[in-house]
Amino acid sequence: MSQITKTKGVKQEEKGGKPFYGEIDIPELVEGDLLIDVYAAPINPSDQYLIQGIYPEPRKFPGISGIEGSGKVIQAKGQNLQNLVGKNVAFTPKHNQTTGSYGEYAISTEKQVFVLPDNVDLFQGACTYINPFTVVYMLEKVKELGVKTVVHDVGSSALGKQMIKYFSENGVNVINIVRRQEQVEDLKQIGATYILNQSEEGFWERLTKLTQELNATIAFDAIGGEFTSKLIDAMPNHSHIFQYGILGGDLNVNYNTTDLLFKDKHLHGFWLVTEQQNASPEKAQKVIKECTSLVSKTLSSNIVKKFKFEQIEEALEYYSKNMSAGKVLLTKHA
Amino acid sequence: MSQITKTKGVKQEEKGGKPFYGEIDIPELVEGDLLIDVYAAPINPSDQYLIQGIYPEPRKFPGISGIEGSGKVIQAKGQNLQNLVGKNVAFTPKHNQTTGSYGEYAISTEKQVFVLPDNVDLFQGACTYINPFTVVYMLEKVKELGVKTVVHDVGSSALGKQMIKYFSENGVNVINIVRRQEQVEDLKQIGATYILNQSEEGFWERLTKLTQELNATIAFDAIGGEFTSKLIDAMPNHSHIFQYGILGGDLNVNYNTTDLLFKDKHLHGFWLVTEQQNASPEKAQKVIKECTSLVSKTLSSNIVKKFKFEQIEEALEYYSKNMSAGKVLLTKHA
Repeated sequence: MSQITKTKGVKQEEKGGKPFYGEIDIPELVEGDLLIDVYAAPINPSDQYLIQGIYPEPRKFPGISGIEGSGKVIQAKGQNLQNLVGKNVAFTPKHNQTTGSYGEYAISTEKQVFVLPDNVDLFQGACTYINPFTVVYMLEKVKELGVKTVVHDVGSSALGKQMIKYFSENGVNVINIVRRQEQVEDLKQIGATYILNQSEEGFWERLTKLTQELNATIAFDAIGGEFTSKLIDAMPNHSHIFQYGILGGDLNVNYNTTDLLFKDKHLHGFWLVTEQQNASPEKAQKVIKECTSLVSKTLSSNIVKKFKFEQIEEALEYYSKNMSAGKVLLTKHA
Repeated sequence: MSQITKTKGVKQEEKGGKPFYGEIDIPELVEGDLLIDVYAAPINPSDQYLIQGIYPEPRKFPGISGIEGSGKVIQAKGQNLQNLVGKNVAFTPKHNQTTGSYGEYAISTEKQVFVLPDNVDLFQGACTYINPFTVVYMLEKVKELGVKTVVHDVGSSALGKQMIKYFSENGVNVINIVRRQEQVEDLKQIGATYILNQSEEGFWERLTKLTQELNATIAFDAIGGEFTSKLIDAMPNHSHIFQYGILGGDLNVNYNTTDLLFKDKHLHGFWLVTEQQNASPEKAQKVIKECTSLVSKTLSSNIVKKFKFEQIEEALEYYSKNMSAGKVLLTKHA
């Protein structure tokens, strides 16, 4: 089979440039490369950051965007990779390359794919990497620190809903922070125990009281800015606050030194890339196994809308206005 | 021996109140208490914070200030404590009590004293707890994180000089930040290898370059405020920044989320009280042994001036103007 040489998809001329439907050449495969016929790819918050040019994943431009996806391996460069050809996989695109997941074809590598179970359809499979892996690595962190209750400040996000179910199955409580009353109802239906609406008066006092009562000494924060400053203040002594997103758009956080110095609070980031780099081979395998077995159950995503690559502008707008509804996919099968 | 009932010293009527030479009643000793005839007590940065009312150590008012000191145990309440009577000790005062170390007599407890070796004089012994213990616990932290070079931003402080010698003896390099040229000369004389003057142009670029080159991924920061913000920025990826003081007086620190999220930097406090609470009995014993054996050598203090309790105002002013000269003591033997 001669190599496919071009792919159409969501293209950017340079880092942070306006995304548009365009075409690029597919680079020649080198040893270790897998060529994937992409089935679908979701829009994640990190995809928004990548398109804006503030996500530090190394990519080449002009290139196709997109951080994760699903598809079929149609070509593999390397004798020991031939068993992957023809397999359906979840994947992340090869680093320092032009071919992201928002295209017809993408290049990945052996370590960046895993074979999807037969019972997972490829729309669902497209959302396997970022959210489920993040949630599973988060639970690993919670267990390492021996904590029984955590705070999550975007409770009604796609990731938040997976966290509620997965943490609950593993005996960890989540205090979910949401912004609107309908999100409270929504989370009750999927079994959330603690839900606080940040738009209600007295929210910060209630959060402070509840975290103390439940000794909730871990927070996963995806908002950032002033909200994070208040969250640091509201957490009990000896807490660990992990920033894993910046949905509020403000990169600056202010804290009071007494919170760290005398109250033993700790501020960290939480990034899947770092977690994967630091994971022992055993831990990495365990996480893959967990995600593979749960991706059509506890860690499944609610897919609300599919767009073609040509509709990227519309898709991004829809996503940013409906982030708690579920996952938005880009796919040639829309 | 009937109990001594009154003590004169540096008194405050209420938390944060103006300190003055005054007298208080000594509370009746209860089981576990030791009454100490205080020999001398140093002024530490934490003593300044205690007097200002921003140090969270629990004290009762009206009361005598002072966080550490030396003296002779003259009375002990409890059968198993009688062996301590007559011994010279370094001590910290009993919590939730009125009798700090800036008085003629102070109450302490068994766990808050250790017997001083015969070769340590009581002026030197007065400075055993805070600085040497802090430096030794800092090295424990450095070893736990497997780091070979650290940044210290008050290199010419009393603690900084102990750190240079003690860390060097244990194979750890220190990048010392100082504010004036004479401090550079001063630190060279005691064998410091890396000294950067923050008042020189290009300081931040040099610091950034040096921390990268030496992979210095720990910083001990005692300045706070905007300086700390810049320090966080200057540290390499995967760094841990420990705030242990607020000499700049500004409690607010601002950081950029990308430093935590994508660069894997971590922000912590470092407080002796927390370290001691978290230490295993073995570690606590090891630290005491280390401090006891080194307090007249590597971990000795340079005592520059002694004041009587009556001179507290003058003493505080002298200390705040000469913090890198050495230790200032309060003592009835001045």
